[in-house]
Amino acid sequence: MKLEENQIFNNYFKNLSDRERAVFEGGITMGALFHQFVGAPISSKNKEIMEKSIEESMKNQPCVEDIWVEILGAPKDKYVSLDGNMLIVKLKIKINNTTAILGLKYIKELDYPLMYVEEIL
Amino acid sequence: MKLEENQIFNNYFKNLSDRERAVFEGGITMGALFHQFVGAPISSKNKEIMEKSIEESMKNQPCVEDIWVEILGAPKDKYVSLDGNMLIVKLKIKINNTTAILGLKYIKELDYPLMYVEEIL
Amino acid sequence: MKLEENQIFNNYFKNLSDRERAVFEGGITMGALFHQFVGAPISSKNKEIMEKSIEESMKNQPCVEDIWVEILGAPKDKYVSLDGNMLIVKLKIKINNTTAILGLKYIKELDYPLMYVEEIL
Amino acid sequence: MKLEENQIFNNYFKNLSDRERAVFEGGITMGALFHQFVGAPISSKNKEIMEKSIEESMKNQPCVEDIWVEILGAPKDKYVSLDGNMLIVKLKIKINNTTAILGLKYIKELDYPLMYVEEIL
Repeated sequence: MKLEENQIFNNYFKNLSDRERAVFEGGITMGALFHQFVGAPISSKNKEIMEKSIEESMKNQPCVEDIWVEILGAPKDKYVSLDGNMLIVKLKIKINNTTAILGLKYIKELDYPLMYVEEIL
Repeated sequence: MKLEENQIFNNYFKNLSDRERAVFEGGITMGALFHQFVGAPISSKNKEIMEKSIEESMKNQPCVEDIWVEILGAPKDKYVSLDGNMLIVKLKIKINNTTAILGLKYIKELDYPLMYVEEIL
Repeated sequence: MKLEENQIFNNYFKNLSDRERAVFEGGITMGALFHQFVGAPISSKNKEIMEKSIEESMKNQPCVEDIWVEILGAPKDKYVSLDGNMLIVKLKIKINNTTAILGLKYIKELDYPLMYVEEIL
Repeated sequence: MKLEENQIFNNYFKNLSDRERAVFEGGITMGALFHQFVGAPISSKNKEIMEKSIEESMKNQPCVEDIWVEILGAPKDKYVSLDGNMLIVKLKIKINNTTAILGLKYIKELDYPLMYVEEIL
């Protein structure tokens, strides 16, 4: 993004602290990732390239410093539609000097793939 | 959700202020909405029911108090794939006594469908 | 679509019989429907409007004469991501005097949401 | 897939000729690909891995012999949501001794990303 565009962009976020901006951008990326890729045909054959491709796609999003995606339970002799419960994600968002570490993982007690904020540094 | 599950759920968010939690959940819902429905076949014939259906689907997400979706430029004599630039969204997230109003709209200067936080009350 | 556009469109399908064209268009609509809407937040609250909205969206696709969507197992006190196994679809494609009836349903023995052609009339 | 499952699977397609089955499976894969990946964040940085990842994901689908995906116009200094008009796909489906070659490309006169059957051998 060019400098001028960057300024227009940042003007929209003047009302947020760096911590707030970090978790906002992190939330967007988590929601985007989940709803973009859930449903995709997955097996042990394309598990690795899918993980890498989700990571590289999401690195395009604003303020994404780094991201790690793991797909659990990709079957060997058949394929399934990627289910949100199969995803483990760790996401690092950086706003100025603030870094938020976010996570996505399946929580058994809730039977729910939870997006959460691990810590803000 | 049952009371006990609600407690497990909230335990994951102890490290966030109500404002932070509100913009985090708002970010998730915005990212989810965009990446779930972009690409859907849309024309003037199904514009209204698609708007309503996106709203009702997203009201399932945690902490979504209310949401308004408008689809601009749905054509009359043909159909297109729903483009993110056609979306206008207003979203209200409530965490205890804190309410965040979030928006999604196409910004011409950026040629970009921006998700932003309008205000936190 | 205007008459002239319609002709350009049909030129691409000269090499197919009406039966072949019907199952081709039916396949596209089934694949589209599945991969567009799987993952969407669903509960008993938005089950009906989601079914209707998927139907109306898919009626935009070429040659779709009619379509019926049913979502099974939408939960009452929580929500889930729409899973392909929850979908039952019946689809009617018409090419000139040929009508193809297609289906999508979960097949227990295969543990798989199967898309198939019921009959061609 | 195991032999027994394969038989159950094929039983559903007894009513189709090999040509019909080939274009049906091809249609499914085209519709699936389009509606799964349209909307994904794309730039010159992740163009190649996204192309490869779409190919490997779709090779899981039944009867897909080979597939080539190209993404046109991925920008350099920013990112966009993947638009269906940016996709060029060539797909090879094999049913017994019949091979169908299918395509997806943007047709300027129609302003439409057309899925079509190039030839059946």
